[in-house]
Amino acid sequence: MRLLHVIGIGAGDPDQVTVAAVKAMNEVDVFVLIDKGSAKQELVDVRTRILDEHVRRPHRVVEFVDPPRDRTPRDYDAAVDTWHEARARALGDLLAAEPDDAVGGMLVWGDPSLYDSTLRVVDRVRARLDDPFEVRVTPGVTSPSALAAAHGTVLNRVGEPVLTTTGRRLREDGVPDGVDAVVVMLDSDCGFLALPDWHVHWGANLGTPDAVVLAGRVSDVGEEIMRARADLRRRAGWVMDTYLVRRPIGR
Amino acid sequence: MRLLHVIGIGAGDPDQVTVAAVKAMNEVDVFVLIDKGSAKQELVDVRTRILDEHVRRPHRVVEFVDPPRDRTPRDYDAAVDTWHEARARALGDLLAAEPDDAVGGMLVWGDPSLYDSTLRVVDRVRARLDDPFEVRVTPGVTSPSALAAAHGTVLNRVGEPVLTTTGRRLREDGVPDGVDAVVVMLDSDCGFLALPDWHVHWGANLGTPDAVVLAGRVSDVGEEIMRARADLRRRAGWVMDTYLVRRPIGR
Ligand SMILES: C[S@@+](CC[C@H](N)C(=O)[O-])C[C@H]1O[C@@H](n2cnc3c(N)ncnc32)[C@H](O)[C@@H]1O
Ligand SMILES: C[S@@+](CC[C@H](N)C(=O)[O-])C[C@H]1O[C@@H](n2cnc3c(N)ncnc32)[C@H](O)[C@@H]1O
Repeated sequence: MRLLHVIGIGAGDPDQVTVAAVKAMNEVDVFVLIDKGSAKQELVDVRTRILDEHVRRPHRVVEFVDPPRDRTPRDYDAAVDTWHEARARALGDLLAAEPDDAVGGMLVWGDPSLYDSTLRVVDRVRARLDDPFEVRVTPGVTSPSALAAAHGTVLNRVGEPVLTTTGRRLREDGVPDGVDAVVVMLDSDCGFLALPDWHVHWGANLGTPDAVVLAGRVSDVGEEIMRARADLRRRAGWVMDTYLVRRPIGR
Repeated sequence: MRLLHVIGIGAGDPDQVTVAAVKAMNEVDVFVLIDKGSAKQELVDVRTRILDEHVRRPHRVVEFVDPPRDRTPRDYDAAVDTWHEARARALGDLLAAEPDDAVGGMLVWGDPSLYDSTLRVVDRVRARLDDPFEVRVTPGVTSPSALAAAHGTVLNRVGEPVLTTTGRRLREDGVPDGVDAVVVMLDSDCGFLALPDWHVHWGANLGTPDAVVLAGRVSDVGEEIMRARADLRRRAGWVMDTYLVRRPIGR
């Protein structure tokens, strides 16, 4: 393979794809779609829909089945590393089977720069090669942008910083001094409940027909969000949620 | 007016516009383009190009000239507030002149949720009305995503937080403990120079033909970036730059 396009496709709404992403997709001979398991089948479906709608040239689709991952490791970093190494080996084998002049494509949920391992795994694959293929990244709309749009709000107060973090790090580290706005991703535990007097803008499965948004003081809307989250899991079969929490003014 | 579309158009490359943005633009009767003054004429040009390329229905374009702003105020917050109030009055007058059933559109650089005052001003306009128009936001690709894509890198280390902030706040507050990755916007002073052993990914006028990117240890590439920035200003007439700084590993 000579070139790999890594393409951000937006956070759920197939129309969130950019014109540049559509152009990049139309240069691809073989798409590698990562299969996240049946629970996230909808994610694969959105990709298939985007390809069907926008790609006008002959292409193949190869499903890449993620190697199994230790979800309850003692050493989190080491487990992630082992998993990325296994992924790199599997992906490297898959790409090596393509012709020398082929153009590959990987579609990434949201934007490839934010809590996504595709570029890291691709770097590992390239590091194993003498004459590695080129990588071109097409940025996409992130889930924090989709969240803010769904609420019609901005993330930052005027001129102020925003921290983007995970549920895990919010629980472990709290919010640093001087930071009044935090976007939290990858949180299955409603970590905002630890900040009862903060204001939350919450959104789940944004861009899909099942999207739900709720906002208010955490002490007022926290339980409603937990219920909405559980309902959504029953109804849609999966939940991906993101939220913005803002410190109450004057604190 | 009954509906106002606030539409993110990406950070410089006209192809960064999304399919959803193109659909929203094609519902608009009157576009309000904010004129930032001749220095940023290129920003207006990108918008005009996007409209020419993608809008297929009759529409009008109204230029909204920003009221003057005190750039060296004693009280920064108060000055911003006064300016937003003046903008809201001017924008309110402009929108009030449109028919009741008109659909308006405002094109926002990057994504409307990140360091952009459009939604705040629109909220002020709505607050003055008895029966305010509806607002629909279409998210766009942010300049941090464009920066990361140009470098083929991710913003966060695995599972770690990223702080997004301004040059001003970086200078005044430094980097909070526990934060190892910072994206800096709105910095005309190369604030990364204060972090000589950090790693910087810098990009200016991304998505335009003049785009420049540089990366390395600040002590190695800092001066080169300053020179590139000055060159670019001479050549293109304007500079918009964003950078990611990462703490050296093990510090
Ligand atoms: C592995 S990260 C990928 C993020 C992605 N690269 C982006 O730019 O948004 C997955 C997390 O993104 C957030 N997310 C992704 N899609 C979402 C959606 N449609 N609605 C709400 N949150 C979403 C959730 O916090 C989820 O846990
Ligand atoms: C007023 S803010 C607007 C940000 C925008 N809403 C976004 O989502 O990127 C302007 C700042 O964005 C960054 N920026 C915008 N466009 C850029 C570009 N094409 N290249 C580099 N930085 C850019 C710069 O830091 C600039 O000072």
